[in-house]
Amino acid sequence: MKKHIIAVLVQNKSGVMARVAALFSRRGYNIDSIAVCATEDPEVSRMTIVARADDDVLEQITKQLNKLVEVIKVSDITNDPLVDRELALIKVGATPTNRADIIQIVDIFRAHIVDVNPKSVTVEVTGDEGKMEAIIQMLRPYGIKEIVRTGKIAMVRGGVENNN
Amino acid sequence: MKKHIIAVLVQNKSGVMARVAALFSRRGYNIDSIAVCATEDPEVSRMTIVARADDDVLEQITKQLNKLVEVIKVSDITNDPLVDRELALIKVGATPTNRADIIQIVDIFRAHIVDVNPKSVTVEVTGDEGKMEAIIQMLRPYGIKEIVRTGKIAMVRGGVENNN
Repeated sequence: MKKHIIAVLVQNKSGVMARVAALFSRRGYNIDSIAVCATEDPEVSRMTIVARADDDVLEQITKQLNKLVEVIKVSDITNDPLVDRELALIKVGATPTNRADIIQIVDIFRAHIVDVNPKSVTVEVTGDEGKMEAIIQMLRPYGIKEIVRTGKIAMVRGGVENNN
Repeated sequence: MKKHIIAVLVQNKSGVMARVAALFSRRGYNIDSIAVCATEDPEVSRMTIVARADDDVLEQITKQLNKLVEVIKVSDITNDPLVDRELALIKVGATPTNRADIIQIVDIFRAHIVDVNPKSVTVEVTGDEGKMEAIIQMLRPYGIKEIVRTGKIAMVRGGVENNN
């Protein structure tokens, strides 16, 4: 099943998120990641959903999303030229002995150390999915204690033919 | 109503998101932002939810979340010492005349320009909520064409007493 990236503009009302998520789960399709936040207009939120589904199933879901009263616009931007990014906070085991090695990895990925204590450091990193996987793989040997990721957000490159 | 930050570890199964979101909407409480993504264990996702609710209502919601089979752990981390960050992509109107001004603002906020075309630039910025509001305010006069935000993710500072 193909990974799809769907941008959904919705009215910022109670219950919208539950209804959108239910449309996916009713068909047994899981959402890989979802990020929702208000746009410039506080009445309007934008959801970025990453989900695996066959093309025809996804088309069905998209049509049903469009029928929800609170949904303003649905765009499957999977095949558009995109800028896509995500953000992660990663807490890694660190001792005085190996901290320099971790800092070196952090520098290579242009990440930042945002917290430190005698037993761990917390790294903030922004990038596309490939970069995320790469830094996680490099940090794994030191012991990943905790990880929080935003999930992907994406914007179509170029002019202003889209979304907001 | 107070803004709460809730970290929820859930089994990465179809329908979990819909059930969690429904718990909030059933009481008429809206979710300000939500970010969900897999953790180091692909079977486990972590949701970071920001919602406005009175303390006692939120306690009720937390209790009900804990009753869901797929929920592994719920932590209201609002009052903990936190590292919190979010990520935004902002497409701003830009002409050859004012592009230098925009680049200056981008540099001040340690943001990055990730796409450019004759009529706009796309800015990637990471930071806490205050920084987000500040850069948006500075960019607004140039015309914000589109904005996508991840919503907040947060991690408790210090040792490894928590969550993962």
